[in-house]
Amino acid sequence: MNTFTIKFLPENREIEVEAGSTILQASENAGVFINNLCGGEGLCGECRVQIVQGNAKPDKYTLGFLSAEEIKKGYVLACQTAVQDNLVVMIPEKSRSAPDKILMGGTTVSYGKPEKVALVDRNESLVILDPIVKKIFLKLPEPTLQDNISDIDRVTRELSRHYKVKHFEISLNCLQKLAEKLRNHKWTVTVTVALHNNSGRILQIEGGNSTHHDLGLAIDVGTTTVVVQLVNMKTGEIIDTEGSHNLQARYGEDVISRMVFACTRGSVDQVHKAVITNINSLSKTLCRENHIKLKDINSIVAAGNTTMSHFLLNLKPCSIRLEPYVPTANVYPQVMARDLGVKIGRHGILETVPSVASYVGGDIVAGVLACGMSEHPEVRCLIDIGTNGEIVIGNNEWLVCCSASAGPAFEGAGARFGMRASQGAIEKIHISDGKVSFETIGKTKARGICGSGLIDAIYELVRNKIIEQDGRFNLGLKDSRLIQEDGDPRYILAYAGETEMGEHITISESEIANLIKSKGAVFAAIKSLADYVGLKFDQLETIYVAGGFGSSLNIPKAIAIGLLPDIDAAKIQFIGNSSLTGARMILLSTATLEKSRNIARRMTNIELSNYPPFMNEFIAALFLPHTDTKLFPTVNYR
Amino acid sequence: MNTFTIKFLPENREIEVEAGSTILQASENAGVFINNLCGGEGLCGECRVQIVQGNAKPDKYTLGFLSAEEIKKGYVLACQTAVQDNLVVMIPEKSRSAPDKILMGGTTVSYGKPEKVALVDRNESLVILDPIVKKIFLKLPEPTLQDNISDIDRVTRELSRHYKVKHFEISLNCLQKLAEKLRNHKWTVTVTVALHNNSGRILQIEGGNSTHHDLGLAIDVGTTTVVVQLVNMKTGEIIDTEGSHNLQARYGEDVISRMVFACTRGSVDQVHKAVITNINSLSKTLCRENHIKLKDINSIVAAGNTTMSHFLLNLKPCSIRLEPYVPTANVYPQVMARDLGVKIGRHGILETVPSVASYVGGDIVAGVLACGMSEHPEVRCLIDIGTNGEIVIGNNEWLVCCSASAGPAFEGAGARFGMRASQGAIEKIHISDGKVSFETIGKTKARGICGSGLIDAIYELVRNKIIEQDGRFNLGLKDSRLIQEDGDPRYILAYAGETEMGEHITISESEIANLIKSKGAVFAAIKSLADYVGLKFDQLETIYVAGGFGSSLNIPKAIAIGLLPDIDAAKIQFIGNSSLTGARMILLSTATLEKSRNIARRMTNIELSNYPPFMNEFIAALFLPHTDTKLFPTVNYR
Repeated sequence: MNTFTIKFLPENREIEVEAGSTILQASENAGVFINNLCGGEGLCGECRVQIVQGNAKPDKYTLGFLSAEEIKKGYVLACQTAVQDNLVVMIPEKSRSAPDKILMGGTTVSYGKPEKVALVDRNESLVILDPIVKKIFLKLPEPTLQDNISDIDRVTRELSRHYKVKHFEISLNCLQKLAEKLRNHKWTVTVTVALHNNSGRILQIEGGNSTHHDLGLAIDVGTTTVVVQLVNMKTGEIIDTEGSHNLQARYGEDVISRMVFACTRGSVDQVHKAVITNINSLSKTLCRENHIKLKDINSIVAAGNTTMSHFLLNLKPCSIRLEPYVPTANVYPQVMARDLGVKIGRHGILETVPSVASYVGGDIVAGVLACGMSEHPEVRCLIDIGTNGEIVIGNNEWLVCCSASAGPAFEGAGARFGMRASQGAIEKIHISDGKVSFETIGKTKARGICGSGLIDAIYELVRNKIIEQDGRFNLGLKDSRLIQEDGDPRYILAYAGETEMGEHITISESEIANLIKSKGAVFAAIKSLADYVGLKFDQLETIYVAGGFGSSLNIPKAIAIGLLPDIDAAKIQFIGNSSLTGARMILLSTATLEKSRNIARRMTNIELSNYPPFMNEFIAALFLPHTDTKLFPTVNYR
Repeated sequence: MNTFTIKFLPENREIEVEAGSTILQASENAGVFINNLCGGEGLCGECRVQIVQGNAKPDKYTLGFLSAEEIKKGYVLACQTAVQDNLVVMIPEKSRSAPDKILMGGTTVSYGKPEKVALVDRNESLVILDPIVKKIFLKLPEPTLQDNISDIDRVTRELSRHYKVKHFEISLNCLQKLAEKLRNHKWTVTVTVALHNNSGRILQIEGGNSTHHDLGLAIDVGTTTVVVQLVNMKTGEIIDTEGSHNLQARYGEDVISRMVFACTRGSVDQVHKAVITNINSLSKTLCRENHIKLKDINSIVAAGNTTMSHFLLNLKPCSIRLEPYVPTANVYPQVMARDLGVKIGRHGILETVPSVASYVGGDIVAGVLACGMSEHPEVRCLIDIGTNGEIVIGNNEWLVCCSASAGPAFEGAGARFGMRASQGAIEKIHISDGKVSFETIGKTKARGICGSGLIDAIYELVRNKIIEQDGRFNLGLKDSRLIQEDGDPRYILAYAGETEMGEHITISESEIANLIKSKGAVFAAIKSLADYVGLKFDQLETIYVAGGFGSSLNIPKAIAIGLLPDIDAAKIQFIGNSSLTGARMILLSTATLEKSRNIARRMTNIELSNYPPFMNEFIAALFLPHTDTKLFPTVNYR
C-alpha cells in the first residue's frame, strides 16, 4: 500500500501514513492535537487546517464550513480529508488544543504546597480520618504449643483488635508468601487492608514496618480534563495535584461523539487506554516531583460521569447513548488497579464513585458529598455545569436529580471563537457606550472566548440593548462593531489588533441563540426539578455551583441572563471541582464511601425526556432572562 | 559437565542425566516410579534396584539394607547412588509402584455407572440439593424508559427473585462483556453464581441457555492416592470416579518427608505441581470417558489433610512439621481453579475443606460431614486411619479431635514385605495347626502384605500362640515356618512357591513390634480422647472407621489386637473414603459448606504431645490386646 509523509506545522512533526487515512488520523498518530468536537464525523467544523504544500481538496459536503477566503487559502476539514499526496499541513491557532486552566480541586484546597486538609466537610460535620485502604503495622506474639493457631488467624486476630471487622478476605497470592514473611521478620508485618462494611480485604502483607509509605490518589475523570491528586493517607494531607487534557478528546470532544467512536469506527478499548495513559502520566509526574515511588500508592478513588466511568473500567457504554439509556453498571466493583493498566502498587485498588443513571454520574454523587447537602435538613441545590448540566435538589432525607443536555456551549463549543477556559480566553467583558473592555486568562492577547466570557457577553449585549431579550440583534442600532456575515449578524468583541490571530473575535446571532438554548436547558432543568418536588427557589437554602467555568463565573450576570435562579446571590456558592473533592473525601473515609453508595441509591433520577412539563419550561426559558418575568423579579433590562 | 545415559528395565526407558545425580532422581525425570518412603533420605531401604550393566557401587552407609546375596547381584539404593557411568538399571517388582486398589468413595457409592445420590446423609437427615456453584438461566425483561436500571442491576434483580441473596459481587472481566451478551442474546443469559452466606459471586455470564452443561468435581487429595469424582450439579448424580497414585510420592511417601523435601532440597512449588498434574490428568480422563468438556466444570471441592491442602494451594507447610506445629491457614480462600493451574472452566472455582489444626485436616472435617456425627445428640466416634490416625469424638453440641502419629505401618511401610493395598497384597490370613491360608487382592500370587493382612497376621500369630501377647515369638515352638535371620526371628506367611518373586514372604519380630507401636498409638489416642471427655467406650453409640484399609478390615480381629476399642462389633461401621464423600456433600450444598466451616471452628484439637496422660496410655497399649485386660473383656487368648 502507498504511504505518504505528512508534516504538521507549527510543530514541524512528520509522520508516515497509509494512503486514504484522514489528516486527523495522521495528526493523532503524530501526537499532534487538532480540535475535534464531533469525534471526526464532519459535523462541527472545528478541525480546519491549511494545506501549505501538496494536493488535498475539501470534500464537497464540508464546503459549508469554510468561507470563500478559507477555500482560496487551501483550508480543509482534517477529519474529512483523505491523504493522497505528501502534505505539509498548518494547524491554525484556533484548531489547536492549548493547555487549559484546569480546576484542581474544591475551594478549600490550595495547590503546589502541602496543606493540611480540614477533615470537616463544607457544613462542618466532623469526618473521621479512616482511609478506605490502610497500612497497619502488627507486632505478633510468636506461636507456642499453647497458642498455635494458623499464621493467617494470628494476623487477623491482631487486626480484629484494631478494627471491629468480623471477616477478612485474603488473596491466594498474599497467603502463599505469609509464612516466610512472618518468620523472616520476627513476627512483625505491615498489612495493607481495604475495609468496607463489616469485612476487610487484605491486599498486601509486607515484612517489618513499612507504614511510613502510605499514599493514595483522588482522580476527577472529566470529559475535558483529568485531574489527579496525591494524598497522604496517614494525615489526609494533599501532597500535590496535576491535571491534563483528557486524551480521549482525540476521539471526540463530548461523551456522545466518544461513544459513537467507541461503538462504531473505533473500540471501547482505545478510548479506555487513552484515559489510562492520562492517569499514568499524571501520577508519574506527581511521584517524580514529590520524590515518591509509584509502588507506595495503594488506593485510588476516581469520580466521573457515567460514560467516563465506563471508559475508565473498559465497560461498553454503547447503550447509554440510545433510548432507553441503559448503562452496564451504576455501582462499580472495586478492582485491582493493575487490571486496568494503572501503574501504582502491585496490590493497589481502584474504587469508582457510583453513578445514579446514564446521565447522572459519580461526579455528581461526589459533588453531593463535597457540598454536604445530603447531611442536613435544609433543602439545597447543586448545579454542576459541564458538557451536560446536572442538577440535584434535596437534603438528608431525600435527593432528586436530573441531567439536562446543556450542550457544550459554555465549554466553548458551537461558537466560532468559543474556546475552553485556557490561556488567551476572554473570561470577563464589560460594554459601556459602545466600548468593550475585556480580560483574558493569563492576561495575554485574546484567542477566543470561554464560558464565563460568553455569559458576560450576553449580559452586556442585552443590558446595552445591542440585542433584544429574545437574543436578536437590534439591527437598527448604529454601532460599527455590529457587522453582517452571510445573513448572520455579528458583534465584534475584540478587534483584530487585540487578538493573537489578528482577526476580529465576534459573536453571532445564531451563536447567541445557541447559548440561550444551553442556559434555557439548565434553567428549565432546575425549574422542572424544583416543581417536581413542589419547591419555590427561595425555599432553597443554598445553591452550589460546580464545574468547568466555576472559578471566574460572575453570579449576578449568570442570574441576569436566566442561567441561575433569581435568589440572593449570597446564597449561591462556588465549590469548584467538587468531583475531585468528593473523590478525596471517599479516599480518606470508609464511612464516606458507604455514604456515596447510599447517595447513589437514594437519589431519584428524573429522566427529563420523560417528564412532559420540561419541554414547556425549556421553551419558556428561551428568553433573557425568561418569558415569565415574575421568576426574575430583580432583573430589569428596561 | 559430563552426562550419562541410564536405561530403566523392565520399562526399557532411557534418560540422560548429569554426573552425580542419583538413580532415584534419574527415575523421576524418566517418569519411572521407584518406591521411596523416606523421601530419598536413605532411611527406608525401599528403593533397592539392581545394576544390570555399568559401574555403580552401594554407599557404605546403606550396606545395612542389603543382604550379602543382594550385594553380590549388584543391588544398590537408588536414592543414595550417584551416577558416574552409563547404567542399565532393573527395578525389581518389590521396588515398583503398582496400581493400587483405591477406595473411590463412601459406602453409598457404586462405581462405573451413574447412580442417583440419595441426598440424605448417613443418619437420614434431608440435605437439600443446593450446589455451591449454580448455573441459572435468566430471561430478562427488555429495558424501557420506565425501567432503565443498569444491565448488572437487571441481572441481579432477577437473581434475587430466585435466591435470597442481598449482595452480588461481579468480576470486572464479566462486567466488561455483559452489555454485549445481553443484547446479542435477546436478554437471555446463563449466570454461573457461587453462593455463600448472604452474598453471591457471579463467576460467568453466558449468552442464551447453557444450563445443560453444569458439572463439578469432588476430590480427595490423599497422601497416597488422589481420587477425583465427576458430579452432575443439576441432579447430584455421580457420573464417574477415577483415582491414581499421588505423584508427590516421588518426593517422599509420607507428609513429613514431603515437607522435608519441599522445605530443604526441593521447593513447595514442585510438590504442588505434582498434585495438580494428578488432578488434571484424572479430570481429563473423566471427561474423555464421559464425553464431557472440561470447560463445563465450574466447581471443585477438595479435601485433604492440612499438609496436602497446603501443597494443593501452593502454601508453605514448613512450620507444620516443627513444634509448635503452625500451618499458614486452616480456613482456605475460595480460589480460581486456573490460578492453581487446574484446568476446568475459565471461571471455575476451587474450595478447600477447612482444617482444624496442623495434624487434623479437611479430610477429617469431611469425614465428620460424611458420617453425620455432628448432627445428632448421640456421642459417636470417627477413626480415620491413614499414615496418621485421626480421631474425633462428639455430637451435635461438641467435637474433640486428635491426631496420632500411627506411622505408615498399616499402609505397608516399615516391614520388608509390607505394601499398599494393591494387586498381589495379602489382605486376609488364617492360621490353623501350623497351616497358613491367605487371600490376595486380585487373587494373584502374593507380592507382599497390606494393612488388613498385617492385622490378621498379628491376630492369628497370637491366637495360635506363635507370638506372645507382648509381640515376641515363642522361640521354644517347633514350627518350620519360624526361622532366624540376623537375630530377628521371622515367620513365613507365604512360601517362595506361593509368591510372585519366588521368595518367602515373612514377618519379623521387629516388624511386629512396629505394628504394635502403631496400633498402640491409635488406641492410646482413642482412649486419651475418651478420657479427656470423660466417656467410657460403651457410651459411644457408633464408631465409624474410614481410611485406606477400610474395605477389607476384619473388625473383630482389629478389636482383638487392641487397635479398636472392645465394643459390640455391630456398633463399628466402615464408611470407606469419607473424605471424598464429604467433599461431594459440600459440592452439592451451600448449607454443608457452611457446616464444614462450623465443624472446623468448633472442633477442639487436643495436641497429644502436649497431653501428659497420652504417653502412659501409649505404653499401656504396647501389648496384645492391652496391658489392662479389663479394657478388652471379650478378648481372651488363653
